[in-house]
Amino acid sequence: MAILRTPGPQVVALRFEKDTLWALDQTALPFEERELALRTPEEVAAAIRRLSIRGAPLIGVAAAYGVALGAARDPTPDGITAACAVLRDARPTAVNLAWAVDRVHAAVLADGPGEALVEARRIHDEELAASREMGAAGADLLAGVRRVLTHCNTGALAAPGDGTALAVVAEMARRGALEGVVATESRPLLQGARLTVYELGKLGIPHELIVDSAAAGLIARGAVDAVVLGADRIAGNGDVANKVGTLSHALAARHAGIPFVVVAPTSTIDLACPSGREITIEERAADEVTEIGRRSLTIPGTRVRNPAFDVTPSELVSAIVTERGVALPPAPQTLAALCSQPA
Amino acid sequence: MAILRTPGPQVVALRFEKDTLWALDQTALPFEERELALRTPEEVAAAIRRLSIRGAPLIGVAAAYGVALGAARDPTPDGITAACAVLRDARPTAVNLAWAVDRVHAAVLADGPGEALVEARRIHDEELAASREMGAAGADLLAGVRRVLTHCNTGALAAPGDGTALAVVAEMARRGALEGVVATESRPLLQGARLTVYELGKLGIPHELIVDSAAAGLIARGAVDAVVLGADRIAGNGDVANKVGTLSHALAARHAGIPFVVVAPTSTIDLACPSGREITIEERAADEVTEIGRRSLTIPGTRVRNPAFDVTPSELVSAIVTERGVALPPAPQTLAALCSQPA
Repeated sequence: MAILRTPGPQVVALRFEKDTLWALDQTALPFEERELALRTPEEVAAAIRRLSIRGAPLIGVAAAYGVALGAARDPTPDGITAACAVLRDARPTAVNLAWAVDRVHAAVLADGPGEALVEARRIHDEELAASREMGAAGADLLAGVRRVLTHCNTGALAAPGDGTALAVVAEMARRGALEGVVATESRPLLQGARLTVYELGKLGIPHELIVDSAAAGLIARGAVDAVVLGADRIAGNGDVANKVGTLSHALAARHAGIPFVVVAPTSTIDLACPSGREITIEERAADEVTEIGRRSLTIPGTRVRNPAFDVTPSELVSAIVTERGVALPPAPQTLAALCSQPA
Repeated sequence: MAILRTPGPQVVALRFEKDTLWALDQTALPFEERELALRTPEEVAAAIRRLSIRGAPLIGVAAAYGVALGAARDPTPDGITAACAVLRDARPTAVNLAWAVDRVHAAVLADGPGEALVEARRIHDEELAASREMGAAGADLLAGVRRVLTHCNTGALAAPGDGTALAVVAEMARRGALEGVVATESRPLLQGARLTVYELGKLGIPHELIVDSAAAGLIARGAVDAVVLGADRIAGNGDVANKVGTLSHALAARHAGIPFVVVAPTSTIDLACPSGREITIEERAADEVTEIGRRSLTIPGTRVRNPAFDVTPSELVSAIVTERGVALPPAPQTLAALCSQPA
């Protein structure tokens, strides 16, 4: 089901053509550009499960198309319900996935199976527009900034269009203001070294890769003017849960007196969650830390702590950029106001 | 020249017997315990160059024995001068190396070639005593601390005896106060995952390994009571140059309100260097970041910043523990007083 792709100048993580969802296989990047041809809900779910498709907004769009593939194969209510269940189970903790599946399901229930693909394309278009809005709002906010540090992967491989934080970076580059980007490798899974470096290369943006530990010293020595990164979940008070390592970059930015800017869609804001204290930090498998590509890095059986996220307190966050505007500073009032705006 | 070693309960990185310097090959750890039999200055220099022997104090002791091996082979002034030159060139930036070589050379010039081994053993004994002193002073200072985070490798593989910061950890464990240690992997060269985990296992101290990025979040959530680590160079005002990543741990410790303690011999204190601003940060090869064990982690040719060290400002350092006492707080006065004490 894999075909080789002619490398284009732009990263297109997902595209739907006729009866097929084409997905860039992110497990093969950056060494091979390979598209998967996905034709059933089961194939889409499997691609999400093995991380060929990753990034919360991208998973949501893929799952929406997955329901449409199911509706085309078996347009009966039972068939569509079964397709939804398969997709919802692919990664149970991904909020966008369940949300997108439910939305397509509701459209089908209201207007019939033919509506599934229409609704999936609508979700996709909305995410593309959201990425453009975040990019523009972030680039406006950071006018004058020439060198940026970013963490993990927040680009076209994580969300349709140019992504979230990387959409801001891309827009800054288009406006001609950006000199370069420092990208952290983002251990343990190296999304920075594998995916962000790949995307920055495609965008033609000068960049340098560092180990995560090098960020604080480079920030302190003035190597960048701002830190720009994404969020997995934002509490109602503006505390930000994001990829492990985010907190240390926030502390380093505060220490150096440079802006620390979070870019994420409003769907990431959880007003029901009062603060970061209430966010459960997922601990992932030990072998993510003890091995790289099955090569052991330490004594087998070594005990590991492997938190996937950390929580950055609101007071360290300069601004939160969303598709509906900027929370500046992030606080219960500014976030609630953004969330209550029409989409 | 390599033999397999029967694993003992204690890590002995170097031992001199008859005409041979036996060195635990640190490039093979933690997967294989192998001693190198070094019988000439050239073999000692080669072992230092390829990092089979590493850690500034350990390199110094090895080089001192290397001069003794040279003096035994060719006790003429020219022969000993040549041996000194070979060893001094092994790692030009290591201060302890040149210092130890010069000291043995001076002893030979004063009292004859037979004095070389006597002086080398004296340096070794002094380093062993220094490690005990640092261990005791640090454990006194941290009485009541039960869980510690440490960075990089500062144990028996870096300095004779129990090392520097890890000597404090070992002494805390002997006193029965220590519940456990969180060890960072210490990218790019993974001295934490490879060497510190190995040493903590040998010491029987419970430990958990983390990626460097996870430290800030764990510290913020109260997972440890103190951060204890080493130093490569300490400026006269107490600014600390140490393994890249140290600054982010210092910022996280300050943010959480826990002690951040540096353990290093007084030979590390450079009173002639007024502050961290004057310390040049060595940038190392890109492939340390882009590869692990020859496996590429990113797109070949990716530009890299790879600073080996960062500088933690004095105001973030709670105390500096040396073999002559504790600078509390680190400041020009307290450091100068320590350095002017008799050894």
